[in-house]
Amino acid sequence: MKKINGGVCAAAGSKAAGIHCGIRKNQSKRDLGLIVSDCEASAAAVYTSNLVKGAPLLVTKEHLANGKARAILCNSGNANTCNADGPAVARAMCKLAGDALGIAPEDVAVASTGVIGQPLSLAPIAAGMEPLVEDLGYENSLHAAQAIMTTDTVPKEAAVEFELGGVTCRLGGIAKGSGMIHPNMATTLVFITTDAAISSQMLQKALSTDVQNTFNMVSIDGDTSTNDMVVILANGKAGNAPITAESQDFVTFMKALNTVAIALCRMLAGDGEGATRLLECRVTGAADLACARTVAKTVICSSLVKAAMFGADANWGRVLCAIGYSGADVDVNKVDVAFASGAGRVEVCRAGAGVPFSEETAKQILLEKEVEIQVELNAGGAESTAWGCDLTYDYVKINGDYRT
Amino acid sequence: MKKINGGVCAAAGSKAAGIHCGIRKNQSKRDLGLIVSDCEASAAAVYTSNLVKGAPLLVTKEHLANGKARAILCNSGNANTCNADGPAVARAMCKLAGDALGIAPEDVAVASTGVIGQPLSLAPIAAGMEPLVEDLGYENSLHAAQAIMTTDTVPKEAAVEFELGGVTCRLGGIAKGSGMIHPNMATTLVFITTDAAISSQMLQKALSTDVQNTFNMVSIDGDTSTNDMVVILANGKAGNAPITAESQDFVTFMKALNTVAIALCRMLAGDGEGATRLLECRVTGAADLACARTVAKTVICSSLVKAAMFGADANWGRVLCAIGYSGADVDVNKVDVAFASGAGRVEVCRAGAGVPFSEETAKQILLEKEVEIQVELNAGGAESTAWGCDLTYDYVKINGDYRT
Repeated sequence: MKKINGGVCAAAGSKAAGIHCGIRKNQSKRDLGLIVSDCEASAAAVYTSNLVKGAPLLVTKEHLANGKARAILCNSGNANTCNADGPAVARAMCKLAGDALGIAPEDVAVASTGVIGQPLSLAPIAAGMEPLVEDLGYENSLHAAQAIMTTDTVPKEAAVEFELGGVTCRLGGIAKGSGMIHPNMATTLVFITTDAAISSQMLQKALSTDVQNTFNMVSIDGDTSTNDMVVILANGKAGNAPITAESQDFVTFMKALNTVAIALCRMLAGDGEGATRLLECRVTGAADLACARTVAKTVICSSLVKAAMFGADANWGRVLCAIGYSGADVDVNKVDVAFASGAGRVEVCRAGAGVPFSEETAKQILLEKEVEIQVELNAGGAESTAWGCDLTYDYVKINGDYRT
Repeated sequence: MKKINGGVCAAAGSKAAGIHCGIRKNQSKRDLGLIVSDCEASAAAVYTSNLVKGAPLLVTKEHLANGKARAILCNSGNANTCNADGPAVARAMCKLAGDALGIAPEDVAVASTGVIGQPLSLAPIAAGMEPLVEDLGYENSLHAAQAIMTTDTVPKEAAVEFELGGVTCRLGGIAKGSGMIHPNMATTLVFITTDAAISSQMLQKALSTDVQNTFNMVSIDGDTSTNDMVVILANGKAGNAPITAESQDFVTFMKALNTVAIALCRMLAGDGEGATRLLECRVTGAADLACARTVAKTVICSSLVKAAMFGADANWGRVLCAIGYSGADVDVNKVDVAFASGAGRVEVCRAGAGVPFSEETAKQILLEKEVEIQVELNAGGAESTAWGCDLTYDYVKINGDYRT
């Protein structure tokens, strides 16, 4: 398993594009992205559990029902959600892309991200389709990664190279998301391609399993978006023996997917709105996986823990408090807590009570860009990690007047 | 039902006190409070559901097991939580107060609020007990209200006068709380006294029922504290026929309790850490009460809704998004949303989709100090209200370095 460059274009036969078509006012910001596979691909997806669902999700779900797709079209600047004409607009977007690419509209997945409840005009998308298709290239993952950004400050790409039965395969993706991130059954927008050959069914199984340990364990602000989705396309260009069951190849494929997913999760959390640092909460010694996940996610979601981390304040009482209200069945008198980063590690709580530590050392550890909150429950062998970020003045600033 | 002054001393036979004893460094801040009934009182309480419980809660629970109490002792500046000697210190506090008042330690309820995980020294409390008892007075509700404040910017008192069988009764209380507020089965610290005669059993029933509609519907930041509790003492001094069953008098008593509780809830929410405005989410037309509560609480907890309200931005899509992920069974295509305040009312969403509205009018409405988010689910007759506040730079500032 080797990390490589190329993002969503790392896999053979995967092209991408991104242009400014005019949905956003800022002309230097790409707002329309496209990902295309050279041939038909197995397709799988997971979607937000929010009852308010963006129109593009409904259309994408229909189009992926047969487990096949060729392209993914995505705009930023408008979520096309809570609009009466939303589904019609989303369908028209697929038609525009299908016509321009010479493929069926039903082979196009569509996604939108941005403000909710404002009609999305088709005009700039229609006018932008020709330049968008012209921009398609095997090296243009970055264009698409930029086109799907909203309040993100950096584009997010990751890819790996791995072997299936001696055949070299690649899997890579792009992600966007900075706020309204608290995935549940799915996540923010993530598009992944691979040249591995795998059946639609096994692809869905791999994705649905993986998101439980990756995108579902990220929270920026506790708000589950209406437009979350992860779409993965597998075009088989690598030429491996197709994966159709839970073989050793499937395990390897899962590992590749997990590696890219975790890399994207860390990028998402580290680029959370207003964030100054990436937080990882690593829970070990849990009685079962559900307990480990609940504790990790609750700690990473606590506004008070997040604000303390912004202040580089080793206020471990807030970590224990969050564990206590998580709803997980935990013996709080057994819990150990430590903070760790590139600057070292400091244990701050043992068996539910404080231990003496150097505030100065703790401060240095917490001032790093990436901080790990380590929670040992001393109750079993299950473990889980959640990703988030600190709560800062800039989060409030960004969200105090997002629309104007 | 008439609102009156007097706070926790409004009821006959209820004295209060508050002094600076030295737990806090700031000498002008009272940090030790005491509430005493002239005679034995029926007592009831509800406590945090956090598995990490402050030592004072455990001791108070023991002392109120017989449904009787005389006094409530409370310090701020230290929560006496996650300390190995916590229970011993809490017990010693009750002994100090009992000895000074000439009553049994078991008739004293004890509470602590402040930082978690730092040992609480008995010395300043022991030294302060004599001046504390000297400060006891029938007009000193404010002293106690000030003594329990942490990051609160204003003391919180409320009281009402009402009649039971022609006899005038009073019920009043004080509350503290500004952050780590997301009550669950209980709330932040609230102490209430009444001179109504009521059995311990009915008093507990009244309190447990009322908190579901009042303190449990407040959230500042989604963090359920380890030290939450509401204690109510009823000393019978008014001379009414004791309430021992679900009579008309019980209904009247419930109404009095509810009036004071809602007044305190509004004060708690409006004084949320860093808050610039009080938010009320009023949900109507719900299929059942549980649904109404879930929707109201979820909207009031959304970081994105809170930040939008700080910016006086009528970003109703975030309200709909929160309803969608609340977990309540709601038909989102039936939901109406409006914003209202002293400056007027503006409908922004009807049947799940946006309606045209004046951004300028909306801005004026949202700039008021008290804003109501009105959600009509059009699915039944149940309703509920939740209270919270906006998310501001100052919340981050206050919590970025609370301990130092």
